[in-house]
Amino acid sequence: MTTPDVVARLRAELGDRVDTSADARDAARADKSGFAADAAPLAVVRAESVADVQAVMRIATATGTPVVTRGAGTGLAGGANAGAGEISLSLGAMDRILEVRPDDLLAVVEPGILNADLNEALRPHGVWWAPDPASRAISTVGGNIATGAGGLLCAKYGVVRDAVLALDVVLADGRLLHLGHRSVKGVTGLDLTSLFIGSEGILGVVVGATLKLRPLPSGPVCSITAMFPDVRAAASASAAVTASGVQPAIMELMDAGSLAAVHALLGLETPPPGAAQLTIQTDGSASVAEAEAIAGILRDAGGAVLVTDDPDEGERLLAIRRSLHPAMETLGTTLIEDVSVPRSRLADMYDEIARVEREYGVRIPTVAHAGDGNLHPNFVVETGADVPQHVWDAADDLFRAALRLGGTLTGEHGVGLLKRRWLAAELGDDQWRLQRDIARVFDPDGILNPGKVFEPPVVERGRAQRDRVETQ
Amino acid sequence: MTTPDVVARLRAELGDRVDTSADARDAARADKSGFAADAAPLAVVRAESVADVQAVMRIATATGTPVVTRGAGTGLAGGANAGAGEISLSLGAMDRILEVRPDDLLAVVEPGILNADLNEALRPHGVWWAPDPASRAISTVGGNIATGAGGLLCAKYGVVRDAVLALDVVLADGRLLHLGHRSVKGVTGLDLTSLFIGSEGILGVVVGATLKLRPLPSGPVCSITAMFPDVRAAASASAAVTASGVQPAIMELMDAGSLAAVHALLGLETPPPGAAQLTIQTDGSASVAEAEAIAGILRDAGGAVLVTDDPDEGERLLAIRRSLHPAMETLGTTLIEDVSVPRSRLADMYDEIARVEREYGVRIPTVAHAGDGNLHPNFVVETGADVPQHVWDAADDLFRAALRLGGTLTGEHGVGLLKRRWLAAELGDDQWRLQRDIARVFDPDGILNPGKVFEPPVVERGRAQRDRVETQ
Repeated sequence: MTTPDVVARLRAELGDRVDTSADARDAARADKSGFAADAAPLAVVRAESVADVQAVMRIATATGTPVVTRGAGTGLAGGANAGAGEISLSLGAMDRILEVRPDDLLAVVEPGILNADLNEALRPHGVWWAPDPASRAISTVGGNIATGAGGLLCAKYGVVRDAVLALDVVLADGRLLHLGHRSVKGVTGLDLTSLFIGSEGILGVVVGATLKLRPLPSGPVCSITAMFPDVRAAASASAAVTASGVQPAIMELMDAGSLAAVHALLGLETPPPGAAQLTIQTDGSASVAEAEAIAGILRDAGGAVLVTDDPDEGERLLAIRRSLHPAMETLGTTLIEDVSVPRSRLADMYDEIARVEREYGVRIPTVAHAGDGNLHPNFVVETGADVPQHVWDAADDLFRAALRLGGTLTGEHGVGLLKRRWLAAELGDDQWRLQRDIARVFDPDGILNPGKVFEPPVVERGRAQRDRVETQ
Repeated sequence: MTTPDVVARLRAELGDRVDTSADARDAARADKSGFAADAAPLAVVRAESVADVQAVMRIATATGTPVVTRGAGTGLAGGANAGAGEISLSLGAMDRILEVRPDDLLAVVEPGILNADLNEALRPHGVWWAPDPASRAISTVGGNIATGAGGLLCAKYGVVRDAVLALDVVLADGRLLHLGHRSVKGVTGLDLTSLFIGSEGILGVVVGATLKLRPLPSGPVCSITAMFPDVRAAASASAAVTASGVQPAIMELMDAGSLAAVHALLGLETPPPGAAQLTIQTDGSASVAEAEAIAGILRDAGGAVLVTDDPDEGERLLAIRRSLHPAMETLGTTLIEDVSVPRSRLADMYDEIARVEREYGVRIPTVAHAGDGNLHPNFVVETGADVPQHVWDAADDLFRAALRLGGTLTGEHGVGLLKRRWLAAELGDDQWRLQRDIARVFDPDGILNPGKVFEPPVVERGRAQRDRVETQ
């Protein structure tokens, strides 16, 4: 079937939800990773209903056309980038909240709703959905589920995997399945709900989600900052907090490079050379006592500590951490990485990052969700430039260091295009093949987000599919 | 290959870890569900190492011999029952704790360690593993993982799925895979760790687990009981507690039938006819304030309330709930069911149980983990008798009622043999087939716990495999 036939069939069934404008198609080539497909997709389909998604998948299967599902396009691994010959299936218009049940601590939503909008709507009911990726104001719940998103609050409140009860999914051939349960407990058959979380669009299209909610925490939010002479001292102090058994809601670590850049951006006093900072919040009914306990641990560890339970002052302290991304943009283009290590290895990982900086001559300001061991090294390259080979080599070295420390390539951003070349290094060849074979049970024709997560093996690269796959 | 050849090969590699005594083989026919295979398995192999498990699986694959993995045999769904022509692979001797890291809040264990023994060993480190099935004193961590076990503390502290970071598994052909991460966050590829949790031995053999631990809660444990005139009032009161946003650690509901049986067993004063009881515990730094808040809600709901922060008195109150299983045994043989519904439908589910009791002339004393909506109806039949058809019909009616209320067949016991005939009713035929096809990726020859979870379709029943599969 030729390209015009696919678009014609889409248009016949979906009318003006099929957008073939140059602007729309061009925008669908990229997410926020800095990567873009070489060419634009056939069309962007803006689904408004489950039936729309089913229609797209039936046409895609009938015509052998690849489909790349897309939420708000805020991903950082290239997972939603759509290229030549592909359909970009946008779920952004499916953004309704279908049900809120504070008594059952659940909500049923469409995938396109923004995380922050959902939580705004839940607040009057006294409940919230805990996953809080830094992108929460601009990223969709469906995208959070597809990437298995994390965030700042994960050590205390868990990741997306801990916060989804059930999913409605459309398979490659257009069939609709209901996975999971509305009840807290449920072990009927295999846990396909969990399998879909973090599956990055290669198993099916999430068209509905039953989310596990929590009661809003009571008590004031207390905020703490602690400045340390170097990043190793700050990392050790955060480990001491974890080891104490007191559970902060947020515990963020900024190293010297990231702290200096933010201070410059915000016009704050230049921090001492090498200084690193922890920013911590406690919440819940014991928040004040917990903040005092944490402040004591930080002082004992040599930190210069500020504590406040004033919301405005707390917001001001946290704003320093929140200004990281704009601050990085002042330095150049950044390749944002996402390794995660066991908490006790955080200081060691910072040592490895310093080594990589020295050996490859690259600046890598790094922030960490210190409560859970997830680091975001920002590889700074010249503005607008492609990522040069020595930066890729540095990233490769850094990934392998994280694996040596018992860590993982990606804590919360996903594999997408950006990390697929390292996937087998972490999984091992046997598990890599097993995972790919599982994906093929869902998608025997390979039309769901092909080339993402699993790099096509060398022997398969000659196939026509290759032309559709973006290269790094 | 003939049966003696399989045993001879096992013995050649595994020596006296291969037990073909009549006692051992007979014990492996059954778990605690009341079901037993018609005939005994070929042998019981007591693996002592990962290499032992790999050897068994290689021989099983080479000879086409089914393998039924077994922990302590405390399952309630027949999932570990081994029958004619099968190998019973016992992991009870693989019970070492390999690593405890309080700083990383993780422990690495072998699958055969008992849940309670693990927690005893963790206590001096100030940490614990939260899953607490009622069988925790006698059930293994590996069995808890294989069934996706729940327990009393799940509403506050989660289920097994929330408490496992990584698994080592041996596949059907003997290959060893490492799934998951040591870090809190990790989204590298598909979440096969979650897929294995609750997979009941059909995907592979769990030979090691990296468990997510929690700091031991601080503060006194407060205990509360509240007596209500009927079960609907008690269920509504528990819903009011959940809706208040206060999170008890434990919230158990006993209906009139279960409460009367326990009081008779323990020689306590006979409760008023129809009376039902809630037993609640709070823990953590706010436990006293939370207990007071809950007591107020229960009194407002018409309950006669007792509160104590005395540990001995609390233990005495909880002993009533803990005496349920011995009390049921005084009534006859019980078929223990395990439906789960959204919390708000708990009272409705009790209405359905009362209807089923009336319509089928069966007594069904029922306790519920009211904090999470999981009910255990105990169908009482004559001691020693097979479960008669009208009781199966009553169970069928009750399962379908749970599904109508948005619930599930099994909250924490698993499907095994006992519920496989209802599996497609909950999953739908499409998802049933998809799940079976996923299992076949792991186990193409169908040698891993065949006939469990997935009932062989009618067209397949003529196969030789049938002889190995127990019937209800």
